[in-house]
Amino acid sequence: MTQPTTAGTDWTDPTCPVARTLDMVGDRWSLLIVRDAMDGARAFGDFQQATGIARNILTDRLRRLVQRGIIERKPAPSGRRHIYTLTPAGRDLFTVVVALRQWGERHTFMPTEERSVLVDEYGLPIPELQPKSSTGRPVNPETTSVQRNR
Amino acid sequence: MTQPTTAGTDWTDPTCPVARTLDMVGDRWSLLIVRDAMDGARAFGDFQQATGIARNILTDRLRRLVQRGIIERKPAPSGRRHIYTLTPAGRDLFTVVVALRQWGERHTFMPTEERSVLVDEYGLPIPELQPKSSTGRPVNPETTSVQRNR
Repeated sequence: MTQPTTAGTDWTDPTCPVARTLDMVGDRWSLLIVRDAMDGARAFGDFQQATGIARNILTDRLRRLVQRGIIERKPAPSGRRHIYTLTPAGRDLFTVVVALRQWGERHTFMPTEERSVLVDEYGLPIPELQPKSSTGRPVNPETTSVQRNR
Repeated sequence: MTQPTTAGTDWTDPTCPVARTLDMVGDRWSLLIVRDAMDGARAFGDFQQATGIARNILTDRLRRLVQRGIIERKPAPSGRRHIYTLTPAGRDLFTVVVALRQWGERHTFMPTEERSVLVDEYGLPIPELQPKSSTGRPVNPETTSVQRNR
């Protein structure tokens, strides 16, 4: 996998991969921009329209995502504007976005509320992600632990 | 699953479960607090120590997480302080935390850098999460799509 640009990053908790990911993309707008890029947004206006994000915040977040190697900025075919596409590391945030989506589906909607659904090529919903142990059994915070500094 | 308190929430993008989750927990500190709670933090000081978060930010984030039904605040056995534990909805963020961790492992560490590892009861690392289709095949942003407002 491509290595995002992390040199010189001032990590909140340097040995924790969860904390490093949050340092890279852990704000609401950055992850919504990544979601929109996965959903086909490419031009500045696409991202603006998808979330109603303010221009200055969008400019700042796109610049940071480009700096961090999550999004790539290329000249548009017309040559007059730019398009923004996910790098391999950015595309690999798919699992994070799916996990966020599935938690939202389970906990933030009333049964009567309209919501978008992520479907496969057959139009069927993606099954729920479930962390498993090395032997394939479902795990949770009680059956796992964090080993420091390996 | 318990329903977090979402009444009156001013959603950024009301029909998108990804956006709703980010409205609930999509800031770096909230997710680090959830991580620490999964890792055994219970008292105010535990959370403070785990991340070096400033007291006022920790107070604010804990209050918001309690309001949103992610964390529960109870009197400590001694009766003089409080402990903070995850609600069922908070515990269910485990998959999100695992997904963030695994992305961080893949993309933010140099091979020589020390990092913590999430292990199962046998001390073996948790296998990588992989979103699958309804037929069990690996999916990615290209082989899935978002259907609006079902």
